[in-house]
Amino acid sequence: MSVPPPARVGDSVAEIDTPALVIDLDAFERNLDRMARFAHDTGIRVRPHAKTHKSPSVAHAQIARGAVGQCCQKVAEAEVLVHAGIHNVLVSNQVVGAAKVARLAALARHAWIGVCADDPAQVRAYGEAARRAQVDLHVLVEIDVGAARCGVAPGDAAVELAKLIADTPGLSFEGLQAYHGSAQHIRGHRERRAAILTAAQAVQLTGEKMGAAGLDCRTIGGAGTGSFRFETETGLWNELQPGSYCFMDADYGRNLDEEGKEKGEFENALFVASTVMSAVAPGRAVVDAGHKASAIDSGLPTVWRRPDVEYAGAADEHGKLSLGAKAAKPALGDRVWLVPGHVDPTVNLHDWYVGVRGGLEDGVVECLWPVAARGAMT
Amino acid sequence: MSVPPPARVGDSVAEIDTPALVIDLDAFERNLDRMARFAHDTGIRVRPHAKTHKSPSVAHAQIARGAVGQCCQKVAEAEVLVHAGIHNVLVSNQVVGAAKVARLAALARHAWIGVCADDPAQVRAYGEAARRAQVDLHVLVEIDVGAARCGVAPGDAAVELAKLIADTPGLSFEGLQAYHGSAQHIRGHRERRAAILTAAQAVQLTGEKMGAAGLDCRTIGGAGTGSFRFETETGLWNELQPGSYCFMDADYGRNLDEEGKEKGEFENALFVASTVMSAVAPGRAVVDAGHKASAIDSGLPTVWRRPDVEYAGAADEHGKLSLGAKAAKPALGDRVWLVPGHVDPTVNLHDWYVGVRGGLEDGVVECLWPVAARGAMT
Repeated sequence: MSVPPPARVGDSVAEIDTPALVIDLDAFERNLDRMARFAHDTGIRVRPHAKTHKSPSVAHAQIARGAVGQCCQKVAEAEVLVHAGIHNVLVSNQVVGAAKVARLAALARHAWIGVCADDPAQVRAYGEAARRAQVDLHVLVEIDVGAARCGVAPGDAAVELAKLIADTPGLSFEGLQAYHGSAQHIRGHRERRAAILTAAQAVQLTGEKMGAAGLDCRTIGGAGTGSFRFETETGLWNELQPGSYCFMDADYGRNLDEEGKEKGEFENALFVASTVMSAVAPGRAVVDAGHKASAIDSGLPTVWRRPDVEYAGAADEHGKLSLGAKAAKPALGDRVWLVPGHVDPTVNLHDWYVGVRGGLEDGVVECLWPVAARGAMT
Repeated sequence: MSVPPPARVGDSVAEIDTPALVIDLDAFERNLDRMARFAHDTGIRVRPHAKTHKSPSVAHAQIARGAVGQCCQKVAEAEVLVHAGIHNVLVSNQVVGAAKVARLAALARHAWIGVCADDPAQVRAYGEAARRAQVDLHVLVEIDVGAARCGVAPGDAAVELAKLIADTPGLSFEGLQAYHGSAQHIRGHRERRAAILTAAQAVQLTGEKMGAAGLDCRTIGGAGTGSFRFETETGLWNELQPGSYCFMDADYGRNLDEEGKEKGEFENALFVASTVMSAVAPGRAVVDAGHKASAIDSGLPTVWRRPDVEYAGAADEHGKLSLGAKAAKPALGDRVWLVPGHVDPTVNLHDWYVGVRGGLEDGVVECLWPVAARGAMT
């Protein structure tokens, strides 16, 4: 059922059919190297999030640079990773439903598997499944550090749940999951840092209570691309879970650094290649990539290195370009490179990564990587 | 690379894993019957749009009820349809790029293939490819009837392009593509009708000029689920191209009828089944379907038959439910049925339709249909 790849290895960039999800491999590897250097310099563990890339190829490249394993959000993603040779996977999420939990436990025959809980009923289900599969599941208590989504309240409620985990045969209490998703996208540096420092108070309080109860948090995990330096700075977290840093996107590009500038910490390494399919009307052009090719949940894509051209509207399969007063109008058939608004759901629309070596202008297709966990949502 | 289906034929509804894309087959078939009856009663042709369903199974069910063929937006979608036995396919879009146009022409060895143009360069490329493949391509001139996207201006520009098509060996001039996408979602009945009546003036003008130039418009096509009665009423269009009517969605459900009520013309027949994965916090619950399971480009999904529960926020893999003051709080593990905000991009996130017979409460899984053209974007 998967679609054929939009290019062949050895093709020139111009030969890539569109829309296509293109990795600039040089920029991508520099991003991986930057995060690996940060982990090395600070001594913190990195467990990149596979919900971004959904690709064993990317996961192996991260692990080759020192990452301890992978995170994912879904059992189906974990299945793809484990079966592709990733032996250390945390489902950074609650898993609910007997069939799903049984699949999770079955995976633990083949890999170290961690999972989160915020409810005693989940813990009991994890324990039953682990005993039936004769495995050990590593369970983290998720605490709500400000995102108001999943997670128990910090403090006593977390300790109670941790005790239940520790007392449940088949389960090991692993520690705390303390991820503040919404803080990643706070634009101001000071405000973003403040959100994480508030989260840190919840982590510290809960960690102290865990210690007083004799519960050892081997892992305190969380932190995304927008905030990982802050979590590291607190000294409380010992495992970072960033996803987007490997590719970057337009949304993360709008985060500001200490000086109020848009952060250039990681490079744009993922693009949607598109083609001008209509250029008949004055002042606009239409490309063949709409929101079925580049997700718009966090804003429209931007046009790479064409500040005079705005991607002004997305339909399912059309992207409307609005041209600045002095913009050279793209011609029918022109290639237009889009920077996705949000990388994770954009990747999830495609079956193939087209990996290009040597840049977007003169490069050559070096690899075709399946987006192997695309649509893996159960 | 496709994911395993989330159910087996014969399963009860409760056994469907989540998130899953579920068709209520009874409601779906009633929707198909309603449109077929409309076509029969008015004598108009219907060519449903496969960009909605991306499924030969759905296409065959529509054609069995009298539809003349299918529309799609992409060559890759047309390939899936033709290879699954659909012998009459219109790509209701411009096709740009030599490789793509060659693929389009190759399909015409196996099926009647139509395509749109709004530029002489496209027409020349279509002609070359058609002659090389020794086929006949049927080309419609797309005119801009108000959507400000693709399409030449109505009137003389359209006639010029039609002449070029008619004079190009390998091509047949088929008529006009006059689709007003944005009009479909104008809420007020009067305003929506007015937009189509304005579009009709452009169609009439262009049709008259075509006639004066000796050009026969065999097809005047367009019209979607939100407006097809208006196009029919004008007597100008002779082919309707609705997509969403087979499934419906929350966005189309907000269109108003003549009496200012939300239109109940078609039934909700497509749902995203989800499960409550976290219910620890007061006043809210979290389901396992976020915007990687139900697209949010046209608004959030709604909760089916639970007016006291609002789907208030979507992350990639989490949906946050907000509970009304008197709402019974969904419990961990509860099944929650979501009505997608926009059906087309939601379908495109899934690999499988789970077809249920006998309703969402007590029904049984009758079929698993691949979303065969999912991700077919080139």
